[in-house]
Amino acid sequence: MLLENLRKEVLSAALQLIRYGLVTLTGGNVSGRDEQTGYIAITPSGMDYEKLNPADIVIIDGAGNTVDGKWKASVDTKDHLYIYRQRPDIQGIIHTHSPYACSFAMLHREIPCCSTTLANEVGGSVPVARYTPVAEAAIGPAVMEVLGDKNACLLANHGVIAVGHSVRHALVAAVMLEDGAKVYHLASLKGEPVQLPPEEIEKARNVFLYTYGQSS
Amino acid sequence: MLLENLRKEVLSAALQLIRYGLVTLTGGNVSGRDEQTGYIAITPSGMDYEKLNPADIVIIDGAGNTVDGKWKASVDTKDHLYIYRQRPDIQGIIHTHSPYACSFAMLHREIPCCSTTLANEVGGSVPVARYTPVAEAAIGPAVMEVLGDKNACLLANHGVIAVGHSVRHALVAAVMLEDGAKVYHLASLKGEPVQLPPEEIEKARNVFLYTYGQSS
Amino acid sequence: MLLENLRKEVLSAALQLIRYGLVTLTGGNVSGRDEQTGYIAITPSGMDYEKLNPADIVIIDGAGNTVDGKWKASVDTKDHLYIYRQRPDIQGIIHTHSPYACSFAMLHREIPCCSTTLANEVGGSVPVARYTPVAEAAIGPAVMEVLGDKNACLLANHGVIAVGHSVRHALVAAVMLEDGAKVYHLASLKGEPVQLPPEEIEKARNVFLYTYGQSS
Amino acid sequence: MLLENLRKEVLSAALQLIRYGLVTLTGGNVSGRDEQTGYIAITPSGMDYEKLNPADIVIIDGAGNTVDGKWKASVDTKDHLYIYRQRPDIQGIIHTHSPYACSFAMLHREIPCCSTTLANEVGGSVPVARYTPVAEAAIGPAVMEVLGDKNACLLANHGVIAVGHSVRHALVAAVMLEDGAKVYHLASLKGEPVQLPPEEIEKARNVFLYTYGQSS
Repeated sequence: MLLENLRKEVLSAALQLIRYGLVTLTGGNVSGRDEQTGYIAITPSGMDYEKLNPADIVIIDGAGNTVDGKWKASVDTKDHLYIYRQRPDIQGIIHTHSPYACSFAMLHREIPCCSTTLANEVGGSVPVARYTPVAEAAIGPAVMEVLGDKNACLLANHGVIAVGHSVRHALVAAVMLEDGAKVYHLASLKGEPVQLPPEEIEKARNVFLYTYGQSS
Repeated sequence: MLLENLRKEVLSAALQLIRYGLVTLTGGNVSGRDEQTGYIAITPSGMDYEKLNPADIVIIDGAGNTVDGKWKASVDTKDHLYIYRQRPDIQGIIHTHSPYACSFAMLHREIPCCSTTLANEVGGSVPVARYTPVAEAAIGPAVMEVLGDKNACLLANHGVIAVGHSVRHALVAAVMLEDGAKVYHLASLKGEPVQLPPEEIEKARNVFLYTYGQSS
Repeated sequence: MLLENLRKEVLSAALQLIRYGLVTLTGGNVSGRDEQTGYIAITPSGMDYEKLNPADIVIIDGAGNTVDGKWKASVDTKDHLYIYRQRPDIQGIIHTHSPYACSFAMLHREIPCCSTTLANEVGGSVPVARYTPVAEAAIGPAVMEVLGDKNACLLANHGVIAVGHSVRHALVAAVMLEDGAKVYHLASLKGEPVQLPPEEIEKARNVFLYTYGQSS
Repeated sequence: MLLENLRKEVLSAALQLIRYGLVTLTGGNVSGRDEQTGYIAITPSGMDYEKLNPADIVIIDGAGNTVDGKWKASVDTKDHLYIYRQRPDIQGIIHTHSPYACSFAMLHREIPCCSTTLANEVGGSVPVARYTPVAEAAIGPAVMEVLGDKNACLLANHGVIAVGHSVRHALVAAVMLEDGAKVYHLASLKGEPVQLPPEEIEKARNVFLYTYGQSS
């Protein structure tokens, strides 16, 4: 099967989104880019992740043409393609409707960085991309306006985009963003959360990128 | 088995209600109408969904007489029948006690449309039907007073009714309503959620009805 | 095995408490009384419900002597016995630490009846028993001071006691109390929940006792 | 396999952290000390607990040298070692990012003891250790400044450390701390939670240590 491992990685991440409550039913979407061919593996539109096999993941080229797969690709495919074109370093993109993160997106309010979780895995405070309609290829450009070197941003009145140098890396950012958003939400109802100083955010970020895990 | 597929679809939706926490134990009910015969498949009263087989789903005619099945139909059967009679376009009805949505129902307060989720899948803000006692066939009429072209409404001090052109469509509305209610709740504790303009709601609605998924 | 069915019913209810998040790890306890013998089946102290077999449920007589079983009975056994002695109509008792209900218990504040859920299955507003130390047989008397004809009450700074004419009935009360407590909590953060008039509570109560389910 | 039972206990506790939502993905860490050898079994850095076998748990000596195991030990290993050196009575240490507890850590605010849950299993109010960067071996000393005879403390802007005379005991403290933190959070949004008097905390603490469960 063409790009079988990448397809499996995309499907596995989609299943984790369901498990962690970042999407419900057929919501959200996941893609990964193969660095060799430049092809992108992306979830099909409006299908239950739990009923999918790796072969149901659609393979498209950088222009959005289907290379392999029998289903229509995600309704947000053009936004994924836009981000991949702008950022050669990004190989995984995940879109969710994570509830705590979305509550900030509904207020058009960024999430300040008050926890090592956000510092480590998202790279600091979480910015908000301006509102754009869905399915009009306008999300990608709005994301690029605010993303900078972060691993995630909010979409006003809509959801979340998380990115990474792999599908797994984008998944970690998506899960940890929701974790961090929940804790910040809970704290902010009781008082004024204490922000981390920029140098501590930087330090925590580097731990995650260079010390944590088995690969370094 | 009479209307086996419809019975399976009703049972499968009931199991999703449990999974997504929209009902607990034997709460809520689900029905679907067969367009050919006009018969309705509905969950039995007060039974654990997880112990049911498709044959346990009761088949009734439009007057509420049992056509097939050994159990007593849902205590809210007359309300389902009322809605089906008024709305030939509706083929699926789901009643839940979704906690975030119910918290608005307890305040007799509609949920404003501040997210693409509510716009896409419920059709905008969520109205509240006036309080009526349970098991007196008064819920159906109260729902019809406020439903309009939406896919769901709240029942004051009680719960949620979601509808659709299929059981699956009603399920999507029920799940996404709770999602949208939760995000709106969380946001409203921290500030004033930004409402979507009517033209954006319309656009988002059309994406879900005509672009999203594999069928179009 | 002595009272095998009752033991199974007690264990099954204990597993549901875990599932619905009403207790964690080995918290809470469940008992049922056999009307013929007057014996009581009760969960053992501090053991994982998921590792138990029906034989691990302890059988005691009305004085608390072990009739069958190899484990020490629940630390709250004397409180169960007290309630059974006072109330011949009660055959099932469940103690939980349900988080939303406990948040009212921590404020020594009753939960008003603003939903058909509480009216149907708990019988109206939920009273609070005064604080008493654990493991001193003082909980039972405190519960009887406030329970009246309700199916549940809160224990100040501690938890919940739910009762019923069967273990299943007590389980329904425990699960629905937490449901109702959660919805009331969420609503009360946003405004003033609308209370149900006493005659509507009475009506809803009767539906649950006489119309709902398959047995009547 | 060297210290097979201890490794199993560590892995089993790590899986419970995932189940109860105290960590997500590869977050947190768990260790246990073998009293005979003084060796410590600890989770590897950044690996999915659900994919681990007992052999994947790393065995280190008191100086942090790997005795058995092929993976890099947790990024917080030095902090575990520091605590074990200071406290010969502690044989289990667990680090989590439990969301409700973390919301207090983000405010640098201790959790008052208003429930038998916190009194029984954590030993009273929950103190906050000052902020320290991760992966610099500074967490251990900060914890020891505030822990006293409690079974858990918060880490400012970061997480939770729970300890016990066994891995299981530390797990109970971690789970019950989050339970207690959630209830206190919910109550504090609605009013002023009623604190338990010190003598009641002491009494409740002793029940858990000496009366509860099967071992005494």
